[in-house]
Amino acid sequence: MKSVQIGLPWLVRMKSGALQRLGLYLARPCLASVALFHSEGLPHSILDVALRSLRDHGIALALLHEVREASVEEAVRLLGTVPPSCKAVVGVGGGKALDVAKCTASLAGLPYFAVPTSVSNDGFCSPQASVTLEGKRRSLPTGLPDAVVVDLAVCRGAPLTLFHSGVGDLSSKFTAVADWTLAFHRRGVPVNDLAALMSDASVFQFMANPVWDEQGIRLLATALMLNGVAMEIAGSSRPASGSEHLISHALDLNGASRRLHGLQTGTAAYLVSSLQSGDHHERIGELFARTGFWESVRQQPFSKEEWRIAVERAPSMKEDFHTILSETDAWPEFAAMIAHDTALTGCFE
Amino acid sequence: MKSVQIGLPWLVRMKSGALQRLGLYLARPCLASVALFHSEGLPHSILDVALRSLRDHGIALALLHEVREASVEEAVRLLGTVPPSCKAVVGVGGGKALDVAKCTASLAGLPYFAVPTSVSNDGFCSPQASVTLEGKRRSLPTGLPDAVVVDLAVCRGAPLTLFHSGVGDLSSKFTAVADWTLAFHRRGVPVNDLAALMSDASVFQFMANPVWDEQGIRLLATALMLNGVAMEIAGSSRPASGSEHLISHALDLNGASRRLHGLQTGTAAYLVSSLQSGDHHERIGELFARTGFWESVRQQPFSKEEWRIAVERAPSMKEDFHTILSETDAWPEFAAMIAHDTALTGCFE
Amino acid sequence: MKSVQIGLPWLVRMKSGALQRLGLYLARPCLASVALFHSEGLPHSILDVALRSLRDHGIALALLHEVREASVEEAVRLLGTVPPSCKAVVGVGGGKALDVAKCTASLAGLPYFAVPTSVSNDGFCSPQASVTLEGKRRSLPTGLPDAVVVDLAVCRGAPLTLFHSGVGDLSSKFTAVADWTLAFHRRGVPVNDLAALMSDASVFQFMANPVWDEQGIRLLATALMLNGVAMEIAGSSRPASGSEHLISHALDLNGASRRLHGLQTGTAAYLVSSLQSGDHHERIGELFARTGFWESVRQQPFSKEEWRIAVERAPSMKEDFHTILSETDAWPEFAAMIAHDTALTGCFE
Amino acid sequence: MKSVQIGLPWLVRMKSGALQRLGLYLARPCLASVALFHSEGLPHSILDVALRSLRDHGIALALLHEVREASVEEAVRLLGTVPPSCKAVVGVGGGKALDVAKCTASLAGLPYFAVPTSVSNDGFCSPQASVTLEGKRRSLPTGLPDAVVVDLAVCRGAPLTLFHSGVGDLSSKFTAVADWTLAFHRRGVPVNDLAALMSDASVFQFMANPVWDEQGIRLLATALMLNGVAMEIAGSSRPASGSEHLISHALDLNGASRRLHGLQTGTAAYLVSSLQSGDHHERIGELFARTGFWESVRQQPFSKEEWRIAVERAPSMKEDFHTILSETDAWPEFAAMIAHDTALTGCFE
Repeated sequence: MKSVQIGLPWLVRMKSGALQRLGLYLARPCLASVALFHSEGLPHSILDVALRSLRDHGIALALLHEVREASVEEAVRLLGTVPPSCKAVVGVGGGKALDVAKCTASLAGLPYFAVPTSVSNDGFCSPQASVTLEGKRRSLPTGLPDAVVVDLAVCRGAPLTLFHSGVGDLSSKFTAVADWTLAFHRRGVPVNDLAALMSDASVFQFMANPVWDEQGIRLLATALMLNGVAMEIAGSSRPASGSEHLISHALDLNGASRRLHGLQTGTAAYLVSSLQSGDHHERIGELFARTGFWESVRQQPFSKEEWRIAVERAPSMKEDFHTILSETDAWPEFAAMIAHDTALTGCFE
Repeated sequence: MKSVQIGLPWLVRMKSGALQRLGLYLARPCLASVALFHSEGLPHSILDVALRSLRDHGIALALLHEVREASVEEAVRLLGTVPPSCKAVVGVGGGKALDVAKCTASLAGLPYFAVPTSVSNDGFCSPQASVTLEGKRRSLPTGLPDAVVVDLAVCRGAPLTLFHSGVGDLSSKFTAVADWTLAFHRRGVPVNDLAALMSDASVFQFMANPVWDEQGIRLLATALMLNGVAMEIAGSSRPASGSEHLISHALDLNGASRRLHGLQTGTAAYLVSSLQSGDHHERIGELFARTGFWESVRQQPFSKEEWRIAVERAPSMKEDFHTILSETDAWPEFAAMIAHDTALTGCFE
Repeated sequence: MKSVQIGLPWLVRMKSGALQRLGLYLARPCLASVALFHSEGLPHSILDVALRSLRDHGIALALLHEVREASVEEAVRLLGTVPPSCKAVVGVGGGKALDVAKCTASLAGLPYFAVPTSVSNDGFCSPQASVTLEGKRRSLPTGLPDAVVVDLAVCRGAPLTLFHSGVGDLSSKFTAVADWTLAFHRRGVPVNDLAALMSDASVFQFMANPVWDEQGIRLLATALMLNGVAMEIAGSSRPASGSEHLISHALDLNGASRRLHGLQTGTAAYLVSSLQSGDHHERIGELFARTGFWESVRQQPFSKEEWRIAVERAPSMKEDFHTILSETDAWPEFAAMIAHDTALTGCFE
Repeated sequence: MKSVQIGLPWLVRMKSGALQRLGLYLARPCLASVALFHSEGLPHSILDVALRSLRDHGIALALLHEVREASVEEAVRLLGTVPPSCKAVVGVGGGKALDVAKCTASLAGLPYFAVPTSVSNDGFCSPQASVTLEGKRRSLPTGLPDAVVVDLAVCRGAPLTLFHSGVGDLSSKFTAVADWTLAFHRRGVPVNDLAALMSDASVFQFMANPVWDEQGIRLLATALMLNGVAMEIAGSSRPASGSEHLISHALDLNGASRRLHGLQTGTAAYLVSSLQSGDHHERIGELFARTGFWESVRQQPFSKEEWRIAVERAPSMKEDFHTILSETDAWPEFAAMIAHDTALTGCFE
């Protein structure tokens, strides 16, 4: 019975102005030439800060690529374009760019720097890359990033709805852990208590200051990062992803009108938690009320019919993955909530 | 630049009734014979539950020892009494017993099970043992425990003042991290941001439910445990111990009337945080108000004179350890607070 | 300065009859469903032993695939066919099959079992997969296999020329380490002495019994496996691959008539070592004489003209990779040896 | 089933003149102040080279101590004298000094540099410290050294009999691995094949050049070091220590006239291997003949009567440790060998 060995990022920086110091963070460990992958449509002002910082610290730009597609095939293709001189891969922006950069870095065996420009989900510091393979969504194991650089001012400048998405994704840790525990009791799925406690605690921690300011964003980013660490400890996504993610995946797969990932998982977590024991439903409700989460949902309400289909399909989304949805016909309850819970007023149509 | 590798406990259990399952936790990984070290004066009712659980699961008791003295010399002596057949060391109770058990297990190279019966400080899951060597206090590196078993009902049954001590020790993470950051700016002491963020966040997390019930104790224990993990990541005690601990050490060394460690460090953290920037002073004040921390202090007030001497001695307690006290003559400010801050009324005499 | 952490296979079996126990090795850690990749043209008798062993131990065959092409693209395609129920990837046979299995397992994050049926190079237990990307040869980092199963009787039944290839590949560790040391002196390339000593020693170890019997094959396989460990320690292929591999790569890239990898690298090591100081040239000569290495070469002699071109191209095969060939016009010396060294008589035409 | 994680020295240097560079090896990772423990009677000429090298590279000597006693109690006492400013512990000399230095470094959590001045046993790079506790011999777990510095010229200057002792200790790896395999078949003791193969191979590797010159000493030191790595992989001393060590321990415990550890274990390995299957007996015989091992034994012959008693006591030396001696009355066979085997002529009296 040896201790559980995990690898952690050797650099974490969460502060205003971190982006301007990106070149410095690369220069210190002598990563003198990098490939930089960024999101489609990343504001020039942000990209320019990053590029100038590289230049100022003498970091060569071996490759600059705008990511349009998050697939393994694309990561492999990009791998072929990374020159041998390249010492690290940097991902700047949102989900797709970070996932492709993480995947390419993993294939190449190069250090990976995650530089999210918003905190809208837990992908920036998770040990997997979410990419498609032959058009189907897959999670590829990559390990945690080697470095995480979160410029709080940049993230504060991102739209509020992205912050809400991050809050929603965070809230789903409550339901994920409850589903994990349920799977242990019903099916003997092993639970790593350290990972479960860490995941659960990460939500509480953000609740201390659930506000859209730099301190709140720092707490949210830290909470989501600790979730990544919890996944690494558990060796699975169980501490971060349960029935609420199944519903979100089902929505995506069914081709429902796209919403931000965290708005879907957060709303699903609110619904699912009502079926689980404990006080998570109230806590999530309070968290969403304090942050104004529902406003972002109301700006573009979900389709009730799409959700009905997704909830019914959810239990079969993942093989061998027991959740509360495996043992309950949840839709009638959810439909009643959608009809009567005033918090949800205007969130579905 | 490889990732930071750390070893974590492979078993963590925090729940009511965990003590009754101790034998099971040992039996699963086939640790069929153990040495059990317990605190002096541990209630028979608690010890009996542990011993019965071992018996029920066929775990042999290779050695049963009541710990009276927390010294390296004692740990070495005990090492000589651990028979070769022994497969693990279990520590049950409070500070001293756990420290000696951890130290002996480390010397013997045996797995160590920490079974705290109260949550009064962060020692139960820290990567060091706090013991004396030739009468002087030392921190010996041991790594984190292999298993942490916290019976929430048992800890809830411990006196409220021990809970307050745990809250006080937790609050000192705020001041410790601020001192660490200061030491970076003044002296270039390297800061591990992941550890610092995790440590800071652990306080926020408890604040979500700072209540003396099982959920509150679980959050407190999780927070203190994450602090242990933060120390392991940092490779130092910096994320958990700053100027507030220097004051507490000085009190101990000066032979001041003994108080619980966390009552000393908590009160010191409240004072010290007033000198640091940010809003930690207000947060600690709120935390102590909500938990009733000061009541435990008032039951046996501190000596103002002893604190004066300790605060003056504190900066020289540790070589090469910059804190806010290294650059401020703090006592006048503290004396003013003790005189005028109503929260402190009745806490000093 | 932390110690160097490396991951090693948790199962190694080198003995006669190991293939018949493959199912048992998978059943013990509960890997109840596997994907098995095997070489094109692997004798049915061998494959049948493996499949029967799986059946006998209740291991489901989630996927059975005959590998024809060793490319990343193929590994990615295969990743799409590995069902979620699959718990491990097993590679049975020679180079290509093992490389693709290793690569697919790495992409999927599944345990990888290497089951070589001959010991003709060090690929079966190296921390990289040698595959093509868009038609160009690449080494992708994968970590070492999780399990290595070498059936000595099966490997003894493989053609003698494959054994000679293994001997040739092993001998190239001498020249690789010498090139590494040279790169340190000339260019400051960091040398990991533990890896270099281990690599060097692995050749000596086989020399104790350089015979084509089960004991000799066990020593050869152990030596090549320790080379894989040395690469993992060094974090590079430097301990196993130097100028002799550059020549071999150049031959391959130039489309020279294909020979076994180890016959090429071994012959190149013999030539290159004559330019390096020390007594490696004599030792390689003795090793080849005792094992009859040259006989395998003579069966299908190399083209002197193809080698001339390859030796001239070799220094430019890898960016930033200093070797003895970077500082010497080697061909005239090699040509003289080919003409006059009686060991090489009949080896070139 | 995760891979086996082990920690390895981050610095290994085996070459002539390494001692003169000791200060440089410490200066590079900024270990600016060290405690140096050396053997009683270490020649001034050697100690002076080490001290001058520290001085030349600006390394402060926080503590200089001549080790007279290898006990845990002494290591603990020394721990109390290591000042907080000290950044590493260096052991220079032979067995006792290195064991105490390793033990103190482990207690203090400081990096440990092993600088053996002869290669007379495998202790310089083993993951345990061999020390006494209340007068009884114990192996305390310490992990491998962080750095190993072997000055080949210095070791070549040590008496030939120390080299013979190293050869004897190395030969005992053959019998240790055979005993380990036997314990697996008889008692189900788990065998780590990678460790066993590495241990076995280490002997073969030295056999390639079993000569008392710098190359031979380098091979011997590498072989013994790989044995240390094998112990670390196995998590036990099984790959390096079997029945031959039990006999040696029994000799020591019985107060037999002291001989060098490796002369005892080597002679015991020669005897024991005659009871084991395989050709190890012949190989050890050849190794001892080629190195002149027996000459060192003959200079001060063993007492036949002391060996008789030790061989009879050996099986009961270690609890739960099955070896060939557990199932054979070995003495009659050994007595016959001592009487008739010409290699042993003059080795016993």
